Amino acid sequence: MSVAVNVADLRAAVRAVVAGIERRNDIQILGCVQVKSDADGIAVTANDMDNKITTRAPAQTGGALDVAVPGSRLARVLAALDTETITLTAKGKDLEFASGDATGILYGLPVDDVPVMSASFPASRTLSMPAAGLRAVLANTLIAVSTEKTRYYLNGIYLHGRFMASGALALSGVATDGHKLSQQDTTLPEGAHGAFHPSVLGCILPRKSAGLLLRLIGPSPVGDIEVSVDQVRAKARFRLADGTELISKFIDGVYPDYYRVIPREFTGNAKIGRRELLSALRFVTSVCHGNSSTVLMRFDGTRLGVMTKNEEGGHAYTAIPTVASKPIEIGVNAKHLCVLLAVMDAEVVVVRYSDASGPILLQGDGNDTLRQVIMPVRI
Amino acid sequence: MSVAVNVADLRAAVRAVVAGIERRNDIQILGCVQVKSDADGIAVTANDMDNKITTRAPAQTGGALDVAVPGSRLARVLAALDTETITLTAKGKDLEFASGDATGILYGLPVDDVPVMSASFPASRTLSMPAAGLRAVLANTLIAVSTEKTRYYLNGIYLHGRFMASGALALSGVATDGHKLSQQDTTLPEGAHGAFHPSVLGCILPRKSAGLLLRLIGPSPVGDIEVSVDQVRAKARFRLADGTELISKFIDGVYPDYYRVIPREFTGNAKIGRRELLSALRFVTSVCHGNSSTVLMRFDGTRLGVMTKNEEGGHAYTAIPTVASKPIEIGVNAKHLCVLLAVMDAEVVVVRYSDASGPILLQGDGNDTLRQVIMPVRI
Repeated sequence: MSVAVNVADLRAAVRAVVAGIERRNDIQILGCVQVKSDADGIAVTANDMDNKITTRAPAQTGGALDVAVPGSRLARVLAALDTETITLTAKGKDLEFASGDATGILYGLPVDDVPVMSASFPASRTLSMPAAGLRAVLANTLIAVSTEKTRYYLNGIYLHGRFMASGALALSGVATDGHKLSQQDTTLPEGAHGAFHPSVLGCILPRKSAGLLLRLIGPSPVGDIEVSVDQVRAKARFRLADGTELISKFIDGVYPDYYRVIPREFTGNAKIGRRELLSALRFVTSVCHGNSSTVLMRFDGTRLGVMTKNEEGGHAYTAIPTVASKPIEIGVNAKHLCVLLAVMDAEVVVVRYSDASGPILLQGDGNDTLRQVIMPVRI
Repeated sequence: MSVAVNVADLRAAVRAVVAGIERRNDIQILGCVQVKSDADGIAVTANDMDNKITTRAPAQTGGALDVAVPGSRLARVLAALDTETITLTAKGKDLEFASGDATGILYGLPVDDVPVMSASFPASRTLSMPAAGLRAVLANTLIAVSTEKTRYYLNGIYLHGRFMASGALALSGVATDGHKLSQQDTTLPEGAHGAFHPSVLGCILPRKSAGLLLRLIGPSPVGDIEVSVDQVRAKARFRLADGTELISKFIDGVYPDYYRVIPREFTGNAKIGRRELLSALRFVTSVCHGNSSTVLMRFDGTRLGVMTKNEEGGHAYTAIPTVASKPIEIGVNAKHLCVLLAVMDAEVVVVRYSDASGPILLQGDGNDTLRQVIMPVRI
């Protein structure tokens, strides 16, 4: 029996899951998408053993379809069609299709070869939260995730519950690579505590999974997202309002006690325009040779001087207005600092420091949900 | 003495020449741009031994400046500035600059190290022609240039003069890689014959030079371009209306007698919608595995059937309306055919053929300035 689907719907569903597939995978079945019909329409699933993405397309007629075909090739076929409807029919393990004058077959693999990833989650560990809040937690911390393989437990975002000063429960994300740290909180809706209560251990969401989830959520999400966490089997499920679903395995490890590296006391602080600081850093590093990007920041009361320290290719200096409580000279890696500033949603940055060797805290003026720490560079 | 220049003007001038520099060049001086002031303003020059690009920016004050500094770094500095004016000063071989609060130095190399490329051309070999015509010749043939190193004389566009059927003199460009050939003519203005008279040997403009020139000319040029050819020293100069100039060395070789591979007589012909044919080829090859893209085209009077021949990944079939004078089955490489069709500026393609093993001629209906040949694939 055949299933008729709108080409644009199916194209969008296939594109969203194919983005999560490794392009060159030696294991053929991991490059496949499973296309399966059910009572509600068609489900398209990709699975890389660590992440399973499912998207849905409404089907105009029912029908029994369950095949696994190469994902990028199915996406190419759908991209090449300018017709309205496509009819899909399973021929054994292959997928036969017809759309206007265009017909064809994509050879598939046995669906039994598709890796199984259990999709059952305890109801007590499920909550619903605004997708925009989760997006901020992921996007504002992903930039600080380590790519160093030896400390594998830093290769993800540590998601955990914590109480805010107001007493409200928040979902907090933290990531660090040892040079910089970024922590974003988002208040959870009242009653939504099952998955991320402070008494429950947090989980480390891998860098790749966080990226996939951000792509599925999109840049300006509306509505809620359902989050289920299974600490025992070390995986989470994220279910979007449109039925799209991501199940991801956690990194199996213990996240370090990041709280100790965020200092509480400072002897100096300064306020700087975020865009002005970004421009100054980009200008000064533009003369640098190769990958070096160490700059010296000199706070002297009313001006922040920014200048090169590595003078292989040339040197550069500029200054921007600031209000600093204490003069100081600090060396920083401009690339790390720019990455942090880029995700900060504020006009003015508050910089807190004590001396030239201690950690520096960055926060948006009037925004206490994002905390960033950068370690100075000895100069 | 210092020279003051508009930042946006200098940024555009530096960007245009830096695009022609090899990014990773072991010879440092070839990664540099020469910045030199003269009576009319500032000239920015890059030189990779085979091509020399010069762009100009008006200077607000005169001044003696002549330095060679790393091109990509100067481009980065200018990209990072949001100020109006930059002041440039030579400090020995280094370039000092100041713009608002921003100041700096870029270390340079001795200008004497910049390779010299003679810029003198015989006036008798100089002509002025519409930039749009030259653009068509380059863009519509560059896609067929061979990248195979052994037949190095095919690694460029053969530019030469030839008389059209009307008796008018045209500049003709030809390129081929053995699988496909593309030839574009453009009528030269009356009296403009010095550089490309049929009695003078043509020249082979290297693939890279043609790409650089196309980039300088831009997608929709207006006005004329001055072309000078020096067959003896095997180089040409192209001078745009805005003063931008490219001097390129030719490939030192003899272009094969391409005229013999363009057949004159055919026993069959067909007319096909260009977009429909492109869509059909893209659809059919979308199921193909890897790089294979051989398709079978079956002309049967009123329909052109397009289908896969390599069935590793699946198979596909579609059909489009056509009017063919003689039924035939021909195998073609769909990638080559798509590349040719993509540059054809016509709604309807006229296809001329004799048998399944001879060359196929493609022309836009009503356009006799572009001729394309594709060799069939044995199936």
